[in-house]
Amino acid sequence: MDRVVLLDKRGRKWLVALEGDTVSVRGLGVLKIEKLRTSIGDAITIGGESLLVLRPSARDLAETLSRKAQIITAKDVALLLYYADVKPGDFVVEAGSGSGAVTIALARAVGETGRVVSYDIREDSLAVARENVRRAGLSDRVEFRQGDVRIEIDAGADAVILDMLDPWNAVHAAHKALKPCGHLATYSPNMEQVKETVLMMQKLPFIEVRTVELLERELEVREQGVRPAFASLGHTGYLTVARKVLRRV
Amino acid sequence: MDRVVLLDKRGRKWLVALEGDTVSVRGLGVLKIEKLRTSIGDAITIGGESLLVLRPSARDLAETLSRKAQIITAKDVALLLYYADVKPGDFVVEAGSGSGAVTIALARAVGETGRVVSYDIREDSLAVARENVRRAGLSDRVEFRQGDVRIEIDAGADAVILDMLDPWNAVHAAHKALKPCGHLATYSPNMEQVKETVLMMQKLPFIEVRTVELLERELEVREQGVRPAFASLGHTGYLTVARKVLRRV
Amino acid sequence: MDRVVLLDKRGRKWLVALEGDTVSVRGLGVLKIEKLRTSIGDAITIGGESLLVLRPSARDLAETLSRKAQIITAKDVALLLYYADVKPGDFVVEAGSGSGAVTIALARAVGETGRVVSYDIREDSLAVARENVRRAGLSDRVEFRQGDVRIEIDAGADAVILDMLDPWNAVHAAHKALKPCGHLATYSPNMEQVKETVLMMQKLPFIEVRTVELLERELEVREQGVRPAFASLGHTGYLTVARKVLRRV
Amino acid sequence: MDRVVLLDKRGRKWLVALEGDTVSVRGLGVLKIEKLRTSIGDAITIGGESLLVLRPSARDLAETLSRKAQIITAKDVALLLYYADVKPGDFVVEAGSGSGAVTIALARAVGETGRVVSYDIREDSLAVARENVRRAGLSDRVEFRQGDVRIEIDAGADAVILDMLDPWNAVHAAHKALKPCGHLATYSPNMEQVKETVLMMQKLPFIEVRTVELLERELEVREQGVRPAFASLGHTGYLTVARKVLRRV
Repeated sequence: MDRVVLLDKRGRKWLVALEGDTVSVRGLGVLKIEKLRTSIGDAITIGGESLLVLRPSARDLAETLSRKAQIITAKDVALLLYYADVKPGDFVVEAGSGSGAVTIALARAVGETGRVVSYDIREDSLAVARENVRRAGLSDRVEFRQGDVRIEIDAGADAVILDMLDPWNAVHAAHKALKPCGHLATYSPNMEQVKETVLMMQKLPFIEVRTVELLERELEVREQGVRPAFASLGHTGYLTVARKVLRRV
Repeated sequence: MDRVVLLDKRGRKWLVALEGDTVSVRGLGVLKIEKLRTSIGDAITIGGESLLVLRPSARDLAETLSRKAQIITAKDVALLLYYADVKPGDFVVEAGSGSGAVTIALARAVGETGRVVSYDIREDSLAVARENVRRAGLSDRVEFRQGDVRIEIDAGADAVILDMLDPWNAVHAAHKALKPCGHLATYSPNMEQVKETVLMMQKLPFIEVRTVELLERELEVREQGVRPAFASLGHTGYLTVARKVLRRV
Repeated sequence: MDRVVLLDKRGRKWLVALEGDTVSVRGLGVLKIEKLRTSIGDAITIGGESLLVLRPSARDLAETLSRKAQIITAKDVALLLYYADVKPGDFVVEAGSGSGAVTIALARAVGETGRVVSYDIREDSLAVARENVRRAGLSDRVEFRQGDVRIEIDAGADAVILDMLDPWNAVHAAHKALKPCGHLATYSPNMEQVKETVLMMQKLPFIEVRTVELLERELEVREQGVRPAFASLGHTGYLTVARKVLRRV
Repeated sequence: MDRVVLLDKRGRKWLVALEGDTVSVRGLGVLKIEKLRTSIGDAITIGGESLLVLRPSARDLAETLSRKAQIITAKDVALLLYYADVKPGDFVVEAGSGSGAVTIALARAVGETGRVVSYDIREDSLAVARENVRRAGLSDRVEFRQGDVRIEIDAGADAVILDMLDPWNAVHAAHKALKPCGHLATYSPNMEQVKETVLMMQKLPFIEVRTVELLERELEVREQGVRPAFASLGHTGYLTVARKVLRRV
């Protein structure tokens, strides 16, 4: 284990790498690595305040990204991983890199024996995602590449994940890149995007093409009463999944 | 690869193990293993009908279970895996075994280097789950055990998953069994079950206790019109997740 | 009161007019009107079986329509009445007539002093709707008219309700027909229909243009457990409402 | 017509009574009544700014309440009116008065020939509700009464609407007060409240006892893309409806 997350009483989190003897954490000061390493799951006192020292979960990593504008929500990442059948040892291709949130989730799911290639057209997006993946300690499983997946994608992928404005333009390249039975997943907020993408998938040998929207409702549980939360997350996006075959029957 | 799934035009699926020279499949007759092995992603003809030969996905395995009464839905399994932070190499404990659907999903997610222990009180449930895990080719990662998780659970778990009538009665044992920072997830249909479970969790050092309900809506996409599906899945269950610490702050 | 609804133990309902001395009801035989009239809210025995005699509610009338293919759901009717601000004394125009379900709901809401005009292009739809309105005892408030609302609508309407395939083609005529501050409501299943309709409304002096989808979840309440229903109604349609003004500001 | 609503470009609304020659409106200054009366549906200029003059809809009245803490949402009012079968001429009893929002909706739906009695235990709630009903111009249809509906309710009601903390304690009195076939509707945020209420209803001759939750999703319609709103209203409350009979069959 080489990363911990510090959690304060207000729910704020800091991702900290356990390297060297001490580490300087913005807002918390200089901390001793040995103290953190021996306090996993326990509380430590920093500047008079108690903080918990946690092993980073996938959600912790998503919540401690730097520059995380518009990241895909946890529920949608969860569904994407399962519906695209991402598993240990897989080779997965993603575009675009965004802030690296999905990249990190994929890298966790494929494990040490798996590999993720993350494409983006923009150099600055790649830089942000690369930095976040490095901070999460997952750089050895991930390769970032500047390029246009609408033109070409690395061959032999178990899954291709498209989180871009015009996924329909990359459906052909994705089909070509996927192994037989590999999964293509796209994520889009608008119905028109979904429509263009699905109609394009239907022109190629894809099976089990399916689009879903996931709504998550929190249940507020108190001694005096149980009810769904008054505040609620609305629409985030539609997830479309399809499975490559060599021909349809 | 030692399993394939056969898919016919009506959407029916058969899980077939690739062992020996031939295999007899109920309803399809005797098939040659070599033919299946070389047709992954492609169509074969059996008795005049075309079927696709697929590498089994997690969903295929869930859909081809024998005796699958009342299995947890795909969306809920997806969320459970992600929110309980199940990843390659993990040691995960589950109760009860049910028909083995969650067991199989867990076994896929922890990979070859991970381990799943599945408890059930009933011998017959264990038998069904064990058989389904064997058919899925995942027996070497899973250990079935007859026992009562309300009394004791194997120590050192990265995650404990409870899909049982009275999960609140196993919350103490789960806390004890979990590694520091390990995740406890419970799944229950009724709000009273959720309430008892959450109130019990709040008495112990668990953090980030949260209950959610997931609603999945299918989007029907056709050239002539896009709309959410008229048919819809209703409530399935509430997922409660919590994270063990040594003390709360 | 001149109508009752008979309800049997299996939930079946019959709408019966209280006219003359006796009435013959399909499946129940000949019943005495006086007996029905004096048993409102109470049970009567017919052929050895107990049935309840009810004053017809709006929902009873919707549930006892003859030939009721594809009627708008109760929740959507409820929202439509309120969001289009239909109230006692109003003059409301509707197209198409469908099976008369919305017509009946409108006729109930505008009361004895109100008036409903229901347009349909098809003579056979008008016949079904007219018959259902007659059976509900509301003929004196409703006028059926064969005609095309895309061309012209009766002037002076407090509200115009469009339940047709191409509502956008009637938006101009509706604006012209509405009183200042009158409400236009359209109901469509597909997002493309909604889009064309809203974009058309935005070209005219309509304010508060808003599209909503209503999801109704039943809560199953039992001594042993409370939870949302496992079965659920999916998408029915989108309701778009707008309010005519003379000019926008 | 003796009320108008003024709407400015930012969506703010003022409810103004058309009495006398001029009226002083907080924030807008002194306005001429005749000008307002002749500008229905049109724009007027006040202090260099354009405002629309509207006939008040039910929603306008709800949105221009004074002191409107925690009012029931429009969608829930809509469903309540329809499911409790409130119609022109009805006599409806409500408790508590709240800020008068539901009272106003009921008064609109029963029309000039109908009557609403609104109970509250607290004098100050009654005062707020009475003032809001007066401002809406509906005082002649509504009677406010200080009293406890758990003890006694005016007999002969077509519908009884309970929006109070412990509706189950008023179910007996409501049954007694309702006409045969009259509707009882209760509105509560928590599942425990619903459960107690439904179990109480099941002890009395009520039929068609049903609890629903309504979720409203706004659809954002733009030339460049259609999608459900990112922001969303969460849970508001559960609506339970039942129908009084003299005995069950």
